[in-house]
Amino acid sequence: MRMYDILDKKRNGNELTDEEISFFVSEYVNGSIPDYQASALLMAICINGMTSRETATLTKAMAESGDMLDLTAFGNNTVDKHSTGGVGDKTTLIVAPIVASLGCSVVKLSGRGLGHTGGTLDKLESIKGMRIDLTPDEFMSVAKQCGLTVCGAGANIAPADKKLYALRDVTATVQSIPLIVSSIMSKKLAGGAKNIVLDVKTGSGAFMKTLDSARELAKGMVEIGALSGKNVSAVITNMDKPLGYCVGNSLEVAEAVALLKNRSCDNDLREICITLASEMVSLSKGITAKEARAKVVETLENGNAFKTFKDWISYQQGDFNVLDDLDEFTKAAYKTELLSPCDGYISSSEASGIGIAAMMLGAGRSSKEDAIDPTAGIIQIKRVGDKVEKGSVIAILQSSTVADHSAAHKKMLESLTFSKEKPSEMPLVYEIIR
Amino acid sequence: MRMYDILDKKRNGNELTDEEISFFVSEYVNGSIPDYQASALLMAICINGMTSRETATLTKAMAESGDMLDLTAFGNNTVDKHSTGGVGDKTTLIVAPIVASLGCSVVKLSGRGLGHTGGTLDKLESIKGMRIDLTPDEFMSVAKQCGLTVCGAGANIAPADKKLYALRDVTATVQSIPLIVSSIMSKKLAGGAKNIVLDVKTGSGAFMKTLDSARELAKGMVEIGALSGKNVSAVITNMDKPLGYCVGNSLEVAEAVALLKNRSCDNDLREICITLASEMVSLSKGITAKEARAKVVETLENGNAFKTFKDWISYQQGDFNVLDDLDEFTKAAYKTELLSPCDGYISSSEASGIGIAAMMLGAGRSSKEDAIDPTAGIIQIKRVGDKVEKGSVIAILQSSTVADHSAAHKKMLESLTFSKEKPSEMPLVYEIIR
Repeated sequence: MRMYDILDKKRNGNELTDEEISFFVSEYVNGSIPDYQASALLMAICINGMTSRETATLTKAMAESGDMLDLTAFGNNTVDKHSTGGVGDKTTLIVAPIVASLGCSVVKLSGRGLGHTGGTLDKLESIKGMRIDLTPDEFMSVAKQCGLTVCGAGANIAPADKKLYALRDVTATVQSIPLIVSSIMSKKLAGGAKNIVLDVKTGSGAFMKTLDSARELAKGMVEIGALSGKNVSAVITNMDKPLGYCVGNSLEVAEAVALLKNRSCDNDLREICITLASEMVSLSKGITAKEARAKVVETLENGNAFKTFKDWISYQQGDFNVLDDLDEFTKAAYKTELLSPCDGYISSSEASGIGIAAMMLGAGRSSKEDAIDPTAGIIQIKRVGDKVEKGSVIAILQSSTVADHSAAHKKMLESLTFSKEKPSEMPLVYEIIR
Repeated sequence: MRMYDILDKKRNGNELTDEEISFFVSEYVNGSIPDYQASALLMAICINGMTSRETATLTKAMAESGDMLDLTAFGNNTVDKHSTGGVGDKTTLIVAPIVASLGCSVVKLSGRGLGHTGGTLDKLESIKGMRIDLTPDEFMSVAKQCGLTVCGAGANIAPADKKLYALRDVTATVQSIPLIVSSIMSKKLAGGAKNIVLDVKTGSGAFMKTLDSARELAKGMVEIGALSGKNVSAVITNMDKPLGYCVGNSLEVAEAVALLKNRSCDNDLREICITLASEMVSLSKGITAKEARAKVVETLENGNAFKTFKDWISYQQGDFNVLDDLDEFTKAAYKTELLSPCDGYISSSEASGIGIAAMMLGAGRSSKEDAIDPTAGIIQIKRVGDKVEKGSVIAILQSSTVADHSAAHKKMLESLTFSKEKPSEMPLVYEIIR
């Protein structure tokens, strides 16, 4: 088998065989196929596409290029959750303990943030002592004890995806549904859960800017999951504006804790978490989404979800006491207030711009090597739909180290629009695809 | 300017600006753009195409990536000729002295053969003493003295094409009209001639297998030539069977000499040479093809073309005396006869197969490093349309060093078909495009 013939075939828009796809993945990972041939194939796939069968084979080959977690010891109610990336998206911190408190097993391998989107690992690391570098033995043990563990995906989880993604990133071949599907789903297959819920974000702050493209991605992932023997559900949610009040690592942990403690919280965030958790429970237990929702609301309201959250943090050696005083936990040395430039309503808040402003304060990385300031971030006092007056505080920007607050102010103001009239409400959950 | 954005644009099927194309070529040649980005762009161009304007810009940028010959000292009747590659194609050896004897100036940079097609330089090198490694000063001097020089294109003629072609060759991105056009025409532009005649081969032994694809390539090259201020004519000729009787280096030189001496020769070869030479003279002198043809036939028949040929060989230090006895010149130590396996007619002779058989004998290279046996090759005693009897000699295979004659016999027989009835004649020159 020759890579040349595979390239020739895909250039002509023909379908590759399973053997050809597996050959490409294994030979690329072991270094026999050079980058310049791989990038040419990625470009041909971007333009000429792949069938579902090809995408499923690619996904499987990428998953099997490294370690595959064996979660059979947990039975059939293992459940994973993935978000395509958003700003202020702290849902994992909330839904994971909810579903674990209902008897589902969550063994979640997660990633760090890059660019304007945050990563769950970075958020967890803002909790003193919290270990996210557990060994396989350790995280399996934590999951057995409290039903839940979240830790970093080791280097050998879908190494083919790591190598291919790095190449796609520099060859403008990221934007391809089959390639996005195989990238996400290969990691989910390697993660070993039987049930998978995908939060597909759409809007200005999301990777998928339009509902149509989000729907295409969601359908692709659900289809590939089914072809791989998984129960998959995709929830398409809005990312035109940041999710919740806070953007930043400790700020988002605090917001999640407040929600789990049933304190006053953002209704949109709560609704999305309940929807995602209901899908996870519904798939895992084979009950309707409505039945699952009742259980989810109950475990949230009676405090069981919060109890599981505390257990989880403790088992991963996080110091739970630091979360007793959330003001102290999120305290930052440098705070500035962003004032409204006019009277009226905030009519839009571009999520990616707010994410970049938070990154400027130290909450995120512009390159992989950057360090994170755990308490840096933004508290949005006023958000889309809220009435503002000229000079009133619309956000608090904070950092624990010196950062360019004025640049972050500028970026935030550029990301906001104002109107005389109250804007109409945007949908929160567009669609659920199974 | 970023290569990423250029890739993104072409992936989406959009038109690149002149600045973007020039940036790509110069940065790729100087090593700033890595192979894996260049190959992705080549694949995107293969699939999404390029406009004439883009192709013209790419061609110009590639030509200007290295040395550009300045032939203005020769006036406006400088003329170049290019063949897209065939088997038994010795036309340059014949048409160049014809047109030079009529006052046109031919400064031709040529290449070596690879695979089943031969190269003019290899053929010339079969003449003892013949130098094809002339310095620019030397070849300009030869051209001034006899109106004609053919020598190797130095490393710095269109270096962008050399680098890009090597990459296309291993990434299945050779088959693209804009890329083939720019590859050929960049070298012709760098060659400096005002008038260019292209022999576009079509058929089983040619790069362009169908008349439609040959026509598309021909039109593309004529258009790009015109956009670059050149007079260009493309002659589409048949390469379903080898051209002439002989395939092999000294054998082809001998066949060319015999034709120039007005000895008995292959009519097809003579007709194609007259057609190509007429186009060259017509473009250079601004006369009709019919007027040019009369001059071409006259210079051939009165021996002037042959006289120019002798002068040319002498000026490039070739020993012309070796051509006095053509049997001695083509003598080979090992000769075998290929016998007809049946009675009937030869109905087809696949040119690429015959070319490969000659290569097996030592007449060509399977890789760039291979040495050439100058007298190795094939004399076709019987050809398409000829009547044969079982056991009669249909070809003589020869080599001056030990070679696998039985493998070459096998390859030749696989390339021939026989029929009971005399096959109908194939067209020789399909079309001339200006």
